[in-house]
This record gives sequence, structure tokens and C-alpha cells, in this order.
Amino acid sequence: MRKAKLTKNQLHRLPEYLWVLKNLESNGLKTVNSQTLADCLDLNNELVRKDIASISTENGVPNKGRKIVQLISDIETILGFNTISNAILVGVGSLGTAFLHYKGFEDFGLKIVAGFDSNPLLSGKEVGNKPVYDVSELTEEKIKELNAHIGIITVPGYAAQVVADTLVKAKIQGIWNFAPTKLNVPDNVIVSNINLATSLAVLSYELYFRNEKEN
Amino acid sequence: MRKAKLTKNQLHRLPEYLWVLKNLESNGLKTVNSQTLADCLDLNNELVRKDIASISTENGVPNKGRKIVQLISDIETILGFNTISNAILVGVGSLGTAFLHYKGFEDFGLKIVAGFDSNPLLSGKEVGNKPVYDVSELTEEKIKELNAHIGIITVPGYAAQVVADTLVKAKIQGIWNFAPTKLNVPDNVIVSNINLATSLAVLSYELYFRNEKEN
Repeated sequence: MRKAKLTKNQLHRLPEYLWVLKNLESNGLKTVNSQTLADCLDLNNELVRKDIASISTENGVPNKGRKIVQLISDIETILGFNTISNAILVGVGSLGTAFLHYKGFEDFGLKIVAGFDSNPLLSGKEVGNKPVYDVSELTEEKIKELNAHIGIITVPGYAAQVVADTLVKAKIQGIWNFAPTKLNVPDNVIVSNINLATSLAVLSYELYFRNEKEN
Repeated sequence: MRKAKLTKNQLHRLPEYLWVLKNLESNGLKTVNSQTLADCLDLNNELVRKDIASISTENGVPNKGRKIVQLISDIETILGFNTISNAILVGVGSLGTAFLHYKGFEDFGLKIVAGFDSNPLLSGKEVGNKPVYDVSELTEEKIKELNAHIGIITVPGYAAQVVADTLVKAKIQGIWNFAPTKLNVPDNVIVSNINLATSLAVLSYELYFRNEKEN
């Protein structure tokens, strides 16, 4: 059965459900009801009930709830964690290098297969056992050859739009953007922004403001 | 002059202003008005005008605008980018190791001075030229000795709350949490959550949903 599209808030709660479900499973539980999940996460029961109904491929059993193993599988399918997508990474600087070495993305269904950079000293080398190519080689043909669907942008802000344009031209479907800048892309390309600097700035600002208040 | 506290949305726009201002500065501009900033970022002029007024330490000059170099300095001060805070990192796994090697956080005012892990094979070693200690050594005394104000959590979800409790006990002021779980901490401790898996899941889900629609 085709399900209705989840809202962004629903989607953001799924990794939390997944975490609780895996915890319950490791404690030997086989089934769970929405009230238990709601209690574990300090959420409203009605909200959790609706979320779980939206993502479940099996019906629950009254007074017993739903199978935990099935719920885990349903959520992992929706989050794309149990199918691997190939990704390329553009910008083999400090963060890009760290990501090429990082193995953890595969747990979330993402496999970085190659890096691209404009630095001629890097192209032809390997970083984290992955080949690094010159950005001039970032073409539709190369993307097809690598079977990549996602482009990760780890260049500085001023270079991000040019990289995004190149990725769009090369027919990449989704962009995971770590550069601190809004990207203009056609509607058929999906962008998810994540900004480490902004997240850190929120923390620094709160600390700064609190210490100011205390002085 | 003490300024009113910025809203979360205002704070999130500051790194974008910073990026545009640095671009304009590198193109030789000395002053800027809110309309130019608004146009560059596709934002409403009135919104930008208010944001800039909230963060500026100098007044603008009619028809000329504000000094770019001063605006950059004001924003960097608020974001904490031009004063370095020491941080410790707990969880020297795949992501933690990548972060211990990553130099880029210092551009945002964060210096990781040590790692902590429960794996006895890691304690006493160095990762990214930083010492790694056993979590049992994560005490108030050690935090003082390292002059650390921020704790970065890069352990798996199930271990995050225990680590947070330890950080709170050791009198850490702020927590940057990369684990996919909500942390319960006292009101005087500030938490900023960032979840790579969730951000990636948003992208994967949009791709999955679009491809479903096309099939």
C-alpha cells in the first residue's frame, strides 16, 4: 500500500523511534505499543500512534501492539538505511578528508565512492581508500560510471554554488550540503543542508549570553 | 551596550550574512546596506535591517550603510568565532576519530583538546595529536585542568545519556550532541543537537518518495 508522505517533523522523529525500538529489542521485548514508545521519548501518545500508523506495513494487535522487528525494518526502509546509495564528495579539504575516512555513513545507507577537488596535488591520489579526481572530471558520464545518486558538498561557502551547478549538470539527484550557503538548484534536485558552524554557533551564543548575564 | 537576546532564526541567519559580507569584502567593498544583503540572500529587507541593527556595535551612515569590516567582527564575536573555547570529545569511534583529526572547528572558535573513550585499547594513545583518556578520568578536576567548557558527544545513542550525566557532574557548561537521542540535563547546561543521520535521512526519504512517485 502506498503511504501518504510524512511531514518533516515526523521524519525527524523516526531515528528516535528507531533508537528506542532497538533498545527494547536488545532487552528481549518482541512487541510494543505506542504508549510505551511515547513514554520512552516523552512524547504525546496520540502523536506517536499516528506516526507509527503512517509508517507501519503491518497492523497492530489489540492489547499487544506491533512487532518490534517489523517496525525497525519499516523505519529503516523509509530512512533508506537498509539500501546503500553511492555518493560522491566534492571538496577534499579538512572536513571532506575526515568524511572520506569515516565509515559510519554506511550504517545510514550512504557509501562515498569517490572524492573530487580542484587541487591538482590531490587528483589521482587516494584518501580513505577512495580515489580523488579533478573537478573537471565531474561529468554525467563519470556519475553514471560511479553509479552515484548523491553529491556531498564540503567546499567553502564561496565555491558551493559553482559545485552545485556542476552536480546538477552531471544529473545528480540529491545534494547533502555542508557549506554555509543556500544553494539555487532546479526543483527536481533535492537539497538537505547541514551546517556544523551554525549548530556550534547556537551553543557558543547561548554560553556567551549566559556568562554575560552572570557578569 | 547590552543587546537583547537574538532569536534562534536570527542566530541561524548570522553565518549567512558573514559569508556574504566576506564575499563583498573580498570584492573590495567597504560599506554595505541592508538592501544589498537582503538581495544577496533573497531575504526581506526589513528583516535584514532589524537583524543587522540587533547585532551592530556601530551605527550606519545614511545612504552609505555600515562598515563591512565592523559587521564581520560583530558577527564573529556573537558567534564566538574569534575567541577559542576548549572542548573535550567523548566517544573516539569512527566519527569521533574523524573530528579529532579535523582542523576546521578552530575557524569556528572550537579547539578539541582531548578525547575520552571506554575502550582500554584507546586510553593513553593519541588520535589526531590529541591525548585520549579513559572515561573514568572524565572528572571536574580534569575538565578544569584542560580548561574545557564544551563537551562533544560522539558515542552511540544508547550511551549518550550516561555520558551527558558524566559531563554534567564534571561541570561542563555546554554539550554539542551528535548522538541520535534527546539528552536530559539540568537547565544550567546548554545542549545543541546535530544529527547527521537525520539530515541524511531527510535527503534519502525525499529521493525515495520521488522515485516511488515516478514508478
